Amino acid sequence: MIKVGIVGATGYTGVELLRLLAPRNDVQIEVLTSRELAGTAVCELFPSLRGHIDLEFVEPDPQQLGACDVVFFATPHAVAMHSVPAILESGARVIDLSADFRIKDIAIWEQWYGVAHACPELVAEAVYGLPEVNRAAIPAAKLLAVPGCYPTAVQLGFLPLLEQGIASLDRLIADAKSGVSGAGRKAAVGSLFAESADSMKAYGVDGHRHLPEIRQGLQLAAGDEVGLMFVPHLTPMIRGILATLYAPLKPGVEASNESLQALFEARFAEEPFVDVLPQGQLPATRDVRGTNKCEISVRYNADTHTAIVIAAEDNLVKGASGQAVQNMNLMFGLPETSGLMGIAVSP
Amino acid sequence: MIKVGIVGATGYTGVELLRLLAPRNDVQIEVLTSRELAGTAVCELFPSLRGHIDLEFVEPDPQQLGACDVVFFATPHAVAMHSVPAILESGARVIDLSADFRIKDIAIWEQWYGVAHACPELVAEAVYGLPEVNRAAIPAAKLLAVPGCYPTAVQLGFLPLLEQGIASLDRLIADAKSGVSGAGRKAAVGSLFAESADSMKAYGVDGHRHLPEIRQGLQLAAGDEVGLMFVPHLTPMIRGILATLYAPLKPGVEASNESLQALFEARFAEEPFVDVLPQGQLPATRDVRGTNKCEISVRYNADTHTAIVIAAEDNLVKGASGQAVQNMNLMFGLPETSGLMGIAVSP
Amino acid sequence: MIKVGIVGATGYTGVELLRLLAPRNDVQIEVLTSRELAGTAVCELFPSLRGHIDLEFVEPDPQQLGACDVVFFATPHAVAMHSVPAILESGARVIDLSADFRIKDIAIWEQWYGVAHACPELVAEAVYGLPEVNRAAIPAAKLLAVPGCYPTAVQLGFLPLLEQGIASLDRLIADAKSGVSGAGRKAAVGSLFAESADSMKAYGVDGHRHLPEIRQGLQLAAGDEVGLMFVPHLTPMIRGILATLYAPLKPGVEASNESLQALFEARFAEEPFVDVLPQGQLPATRDVRGTNKCEISVRYNADTHTAIVIAAEDNLVKGASGQAVQNMNLMFGLPETSGLMGIAVSP
Amino acid sequence: MIKVGIVGATGYTGVELLRLLAPRNDVQIEVLTSRELAGTAVCELFPSLRGHIDLEFVEPDPQQLGACDVVFFATPHAVAMHSVPAILESGARVIDLSADFRIKDIAIWEQWYGVAHACPELVAEAVYGLPEVNRAAIPAAKLLAVPGCYPTAVQLGFLPLLEQGIASLDRLIADAKSGVSGAGRKAAVGSLFAESADSMKAYGVDGHRHLPEIRQGLQLAAGDEVGLMFVPHLTPMIRGILATLYAPLKPGVEASNESLQALFEARFAEEPFVDVLPQGQLPATRDVRGTNKCEISVRYNADTHTAIVIAAEDNLVKGASGQAVQNMNLMFGLPETSGLMGIAVSP
Repeated sequence: MIKVGIVGATGYTGVELLRLLAPRNDVQIEVLTSRELAGTAVCELFPSLRGHIDLEFVEPDPQQLGACDVVFFATPHAVAMHSVPAILESGARVIDLSADFRIKDIAIWEQWYGVAHACPELVAEAVYGLPEVNRAAIPAAKLLAVPGCYPTAVQLGFLPLLEQGIASLDRLIADAKSGVSGAGRKAAVGSLFAESADSMKAYGVDGHRHLPEIRQGLQLAAGDEVGLMFVPHLTPMIRGILATLYAPLKPGVEASNESLQALFEARFAEEPFVDVLPQGQLPATRDVRGTNKCEISVRYNADTHTAIVIAAEDNLVKGASGQAVQNMNLMFGLPETSGLMGIAVSP
Repeated sequence: MIKVGIVGATGYTGVELLRLLAPRNDVQIEVLTSRELAGTAVCELFPSLRGHIDLEFVEPDPQQLGACDVVFFATPHAVAMHSVPAILESGARVIDLSADFRIKDIAIWEQWYGVAHACPELVAEAVYGLPEVNRAAIPAAKLLAVPGCYPTAVQLGFLPLLEQGIASLDRLIADAKSGVSGAGRKAAVGSLFAESADSMKAYGVDGHRHLPEIRQGLQLAAGDEVGLMFVPHLTPMIRGILATLYAPLKPGVEASNESLQALFEARFAEEPFVDVLPQGQLPATRDVRGTNKCEISVRYNADTHTAIVIAAEDNLVKGASGQAVQNMNLMFGLPETSGLMGIAVSP
Repeated sequence: MIKVGIVGATGYTGVELLRLLAPRNDVQIEVLTSRELAGTAVCELFPSLRGHIDLEFVEPDPQQLGACDVVFFATPHAVAMHSVPAILESGARVIDLSADFRIKDIAIWEQWYGVAHACPELVAEAVYGLPEVNRAAIPAAKLLAVPGCYPTAVQLGFLPLLEQGIASLDRLIADAKSGVSGAGRKAAVGSLFAESADSMKAYGVDGHRHLPEIRQGLQLAAGDEVGLMFVPHLTPMIRGILATLYAPLKPGVEASNESLQALFEARFAEEPFVDVLPQGQLPATRDVRGTNKCEISVRYNADTHTAIVIAAEDNLVKGASGQAVQNMNLMFGLPETSGLMGIAVSP
Repeated sequence: MIKVGIVGATGYTGVELLRLLAPRNDVQIEVLTSRELAGTAVCELFPSLRGHIDLEFVEPDPQQLGACDVVFFATPHAVAMHSVPAILESGARVIDLSADFRIKDIAIWEQWYGVAHACPELVAEAVYGLPEVNRAAIPAAKLLAVPGCYPTAVQLGFLPLLEQGIASLDRLIADAKSGVSGAGRKAAVGSLFAESADSMKAYGVDGHRHLPEIRQGLQLAAGDEVGLMFVPHLTPMIRGILATLYAPLKPGVEASNESLQALFEARFAEEPFVDVLPQGQLPATRDVRGTNKCEISVRYNADTHTAIVIAAEDNLVKGASGQAVQNMNLMFGLPETSGLMGIAVSP
């Protein structure tokens, strides 16, 4: 029985962790913390959990958290870094869903997040939890950094091309569309229904915090610098990310729909949560809603000698809490798919 | 040329006033106030107004407002009452879209709004701006209280039955469905897209602030006390109110679909903004989106001797800013429909 | 291992059955029929099922169906009645999600559905599968009629009041709001996104096919005739029904929020899928999305001596396929909640 | 007074034409045709037009149409080409909103539309109605081909770069997101609310019918062949197209946010319906909903030496009916903006 604590369980990644963990027999949720809502029953805040979990939020207590086997941080950035060192010292392992330990280059992290990092020495030690890349390192991780939602879809889509060295690296494009839950459960005018429904817009064109994380992952895969455009779009749906990726292929590389299909199928053949769709099918976010799957299609555009990759995921599952649980499974020697095989609610 | 000031033009009723007034040749928008956004161009906040209005928000200045012919208050409740007396003294007329002057019984108002009224003496003088009831009194009004969104639809739907004395008064029901813009343009978790999209719920079942306003209007029409249930629902759409009304008829009253249809058509025959649909058609909020129309259907349920009335309006137009402009037209001797004949954008 | 056949698995109740049954170890899906799509892989039609079910649609074959333990009909009305007799004779049991066997009075059924019933003799034998009313009769049922989506929510909400005899029966009102999936997965202009999004409307005010089914259930509970208004509304959401019910109480009945709350809690205390919310909470369809739960709130309106009941369910689960599975569990002696304890995906 | 006929006014571009034309004093709608709905009042089909237009659909009659000054075709492709020759001979001018006369290369048209063209000789004569490119040719046009919705946004966004010769032509990318109304008002499963709401997907990746039209326009602007990827996406909104365009710049071209901004502002300075947003603002489809505006932002991505252009339009207005009216204004010597200056309904 794995004893679990969750810090900051009042947001969307928090309630999603609870949805995924509450039904499990091999996991015991010990403590949910929230400074603001200490004393409130979790299912008063999240009525969808009525009958499934019977806990109240409590003030965060390092000792109580340290007594857990694993502590999830579902907090905004720049929160976990202040508490993680003490928890690790208590012996608990940490899975951080925030951005605090994702970027290895501290200077870049500090530039994008605008604060000094509180424990830079732990960043090097943290394992980046993208199992499709890092599976070997995850079981031994004490501190695991769960990838961001956009970075997960974008990296998975580009990986086969970069690892094989067939993409030209100077002009990769990730045109990504995210549901509004990606902005979190905080009161903000831009996320109001009346502001974001029935409309589409781009944002962060001049620089989004997920850009350096994506770049880090792509460069690692390519073994070289990459030129990258990342344009996120706010889409009138609750959940889901659809990433449309454009990778020019190197001159001379022979490619076809079939060869790219074969490459992608081979790359992800053993991956339980990456599903390469057959030629002729294209992913829709509805088909992965609530699941830990990333569905991917790949096409060769002969006219421009470019690979077009389309990846769909649920930003709160494979893009956050589901991936966190997948990592937990690996860290604790459980079957990787435990608790993550639910079928999408569709329509 | 009517010189107009708008106080609190940063919310949804404010931008809607601007949409309706900006194209007019007989109206000049002189001043838009916002403490918070003074110095900001209005079309930076509301890009939909680019090219149509070229003003900046300014700090509210009683003298500047007093120099207008009419000042609209598009503020939350309990704001206008502090500024209106001074503006009226300067000679400007006031059209208040908030709740401050709608309810004649000060004790009731104070009970529902939880503050002491700042100028109770003006409440008696204020004209309730439902032209379909009060048209005669509006032209001379110095201070006009624009009805609330729910009260407009509910009153219009019940009026013919109450005025004719054919409805039993002990158990009127208004089951009303509103778009999320009804909650205003303020950051609140409950109005987030991810909270309110793809879901339906009731709220305020134990008492909503529009209840006493509706009751006041219905009692005036009926000339008697009424028993009223008002259940508002939050509906996943941007704009629109659909009110489904149930009025038991008095025993012995002879009624039929045809007789009720005739009653409603006669009652609203001269009303430019109330459209009684032919038997067989039912209103949809999309058909009045962006317009000042209230569409109404009426049916006789023989099984229970009850009239079922369905009324659709745009909560921001006939339910707020459009009705405010309709009142302004009447107050200044302009054709009542000036600037209000736009066709709904459908689909 | 229960061997299952599904006839007409190409609609929304069909895919929902598959979502609920595919993960189970005690159920084997043997055959999925579709005349139109015979030869097509089910997960080509429903990509959400990729990796979870690996079958093709086949032409319906009475022998193959008859060899199953149970056959679900997820067909439009007036289809099942032609095939059910032969299947029953083969020894398989039948769970019909359509309307063919719900209404005991054949004349009424034929009037509302406009065709002659093909096997009226089976209607009397069919068990109406609302476990909260009929649990005792279900285990022995050979032919089970799954209640309609609206009738489930409306009956559950009214039941405690009718069974106790405290509601006045002459003027019950069910104002119900349904998601668009209630119209099924058939191409129809009225169900297009551009027709039904961002809008609200009533329909079927003069008579909806679920009216006689609701009336039958309420009269059975009340032991008397009831006067009923049922007004369904098309709501811009994919799934979900919210039923707002108004039940005038008999004169002299003493009631309060507390007494009604106690009544409802007592009535449903042993029901695994009816959840009476504590006073102060109101149900939202999002909280039951994808689950077999019906959440209910009850309030006493003292002003009009009326009970207001609000019931939320997922029209495709408790309102259709989930309830069908609940019935299957009971028919085959399995735990009633098997395969039905999933948590709502929220947000 | 311009006498207008509309063929096929039962779809979304038809009702949109009516919305734009009905309020005008200089236009008289003479005849609306529909084979299927002959005899039906137009406002029975489109209740939003109640009180604004009082006509019935009639069977198409070449003589009646020929007596108009101008006939709009709001028909599916391969319809207009059969009727246009006779109408032109009668002396009426034709504005075709369908694809029949947009593509000059008949072989390419026939390949993409899968039928033989009925009047290829008229294609050469037809004027392509993108006023921002072709304004000089439009006034004299007898037969005007209104550009497609995607082609309008994509061409307007790329034009300044291509005309100046600063874009590298081998790998232009148009990643476009369209509301569901783009699929028209025909019953189709894929356009159902329950299929397309709360989800995002790409389609037509291997080739969309708008691709050759876009390519034709870009090559004309560039004076050379272009390599183009066009990936359309189905977005859960009613109206709107957001096109995100990526144009690599030629090596050696000096560029910056400021230089691109200046280029775009200069190019569209005199255009009444193209609005280049100031640096720091990005377009949202809501801000142009119901209007004939195309809002454009441009950014220089220094990391990849690429221009990123984002263009937003309403697919039914600037992408169809509004542009048709803009062309009509030009063809009949009216002010170009007549009837097209409405403000977006926002929120």
